[in-house]
Amino acid sequence: MKRVRYTSFDGDHWGELDGGEIHQLTGLLGSPTGVTTYLSDVTLLPPCQPRTIICVGKNYAKHISEMGGSSANLPAEPGLFLKTVTTLRGPGDSVPYPAWTNELHYEGELAVVIARTMRNVEPEDALSYVLGYTCACDVTARDKQRSDLQWVRGKSADGFCPVGPWLETDLDPSSLAIQSRVNGELRQDGNTRDMIFSVPVILSYISSFMTLGPGDLVLTGTPEGVGSLHVGDAVEITVEGVGTLQVDVVQG
Amino acid sequence: MKRVRYTSFDGDHWGELDGGEIHQLTGLLGSPTGVTTYLSDVTLLPPCQPRTIICVGKNYAKHISEMGGSSANLPAEPGLFLKTVTTLRGPGDSVPYPAWTNELHYEGELAVVIARTMRNVEPEDALSYVLGYTCACDVTARDKQRSDLQWVRGKSADGFCPVGPWLETDLDPSSLAIQSRVNGELRQDGNTRDMIFSVPVILSYISSFMTLGPGDLVLTGTPEGVGSLHVGDAVEITVEGVGTLQVDVVQG
Repeated sequence: MKRVRYTSFDGDHWGELDGGEIHQLTGLLGSPTGVTTYLSDVTLLPPCQPRTIICVGKNYAKHISEMGGSSANLPAEPGLFLKTVTTLRGPGDSVPYPAWTNELHYEGELAVVIARTMRNVEPEDALSYVLGYTCACDVTARDKQRSDLQWVRGKSADGFCPVGPWLETDLDPSSLAIQSRVNGELRQDGNTRDMIFSVPVILSYISSFMTLGPGDLVLTGTPEGVGSLHVGDAVEITVEGVGTLQVDVVQG
Repeated sequence: MKRVRYTSFDGDHWGELDGGEIHQLTGLLGSPTGVTTYLSDVTLLPPCQPRTIICVGKNYAKHISEMGGSSANLPAEPGLFLKTVTTLRGPGDSVPYPAWTNELHYEGELAVVIARTMRNVEPEDALSYVLGYTCACDVTARDKQRSDLQWVRGKSADGFCPVGPWLETDLDPSSLAIQSRVNGELRQDGNTRDMIFSVPVILSYISSFMTLGPGDLVLTGTPEGVGSLHVGDAVEITVEGVGTLQVDVVQG
């Protein structure tokens, strides 16, 4: 089932997407209100309202290689970093290209939205805490990621985390194609089966020291093929079984 | 003026502290409700409700030296890192000592709470965006800070950011003593005048790429004298003109 968050004439709502129609819900985990609207009449919002956005940094061996690391020396535990909630944007929004970077990169990823409070959960139980899956672009100022003390400006500038277009709640995350296109050209063509740490392992690991809660967002890492963005670029991130997130790059 | 956030028999409130009395407010920036209660009858909460907690990592030359860095090669820009909102605790709460670390450290700091939306603000205007100042302990798992990809587990485990006991709204942050005590013994004895980057410069820098909003929390760095904590320790962080935050360390 596809869950959408959207703005219509009377405010922001959650709904269930059924073809071109949206059946409004009383809330993210709520019941139908009886109101139906058309997808074409609304603006989609990010399909999550996180308090925490947490990401895996090196989760595909070929991406580690392309960043100059050794794929013979893979990480023993998930390498994590954070993004602030001010990075969040929805489908159709724009990604700003800030004046202080010369190297803005896309990173297409499978994103996980958490359904309920999660602490010290074993991998075999972890997927039962997932509400659904969506597409994310982990926008990165690569030059500042390299030069700054930590990955804050490089990963958490305003607008650096577009997600969407909706949540797919019925999905097995273990073998999904992930593709990124810039101006229609295929740039990343990976599959979640090549993750070093699977979605259940990532979630269990995070929950061993940090409480995750409803609406929290977990980015699961990017496959090889990352590269530069320029002002005016159209970016598409496609996750098999979910759909395609589209964003434009604008002067920021 | 001192602003407190507290729990009493009828819920959570903001108030103005006047000696041992609290004059309840309609909200953080609200007006008096006419209800007065006693400080001794309530439980104090963290005096902020941030969406973002952002921290300066190396802001005192002598702390850089004690961590093995060179004070002859000071940072040119503030070095930032993030803490998740799940780290937040209030005065009187406990700090958990997780089983997965062997090196839990205190770091006493001046913390700043933001009053209103702040983006691209110049240093000379930055202090007008501040609601008030409080004490913070940037609890750190030093071993994991060193070994992990980024400072996530090392800085953002649950309970790793106790703050309080209240906000002081009328304070010049440029020359304040900061002291940390463990079991009554003085361990840190610094002064904000020794910051490499002043509070206005830190806030302006952050606002150059990230929107700060009402209630957001900025930790301004720790002076020299950081060191180990053990289960059962009583930690006190004192900031001149604010007061003293007290927390205990428990098995986590």
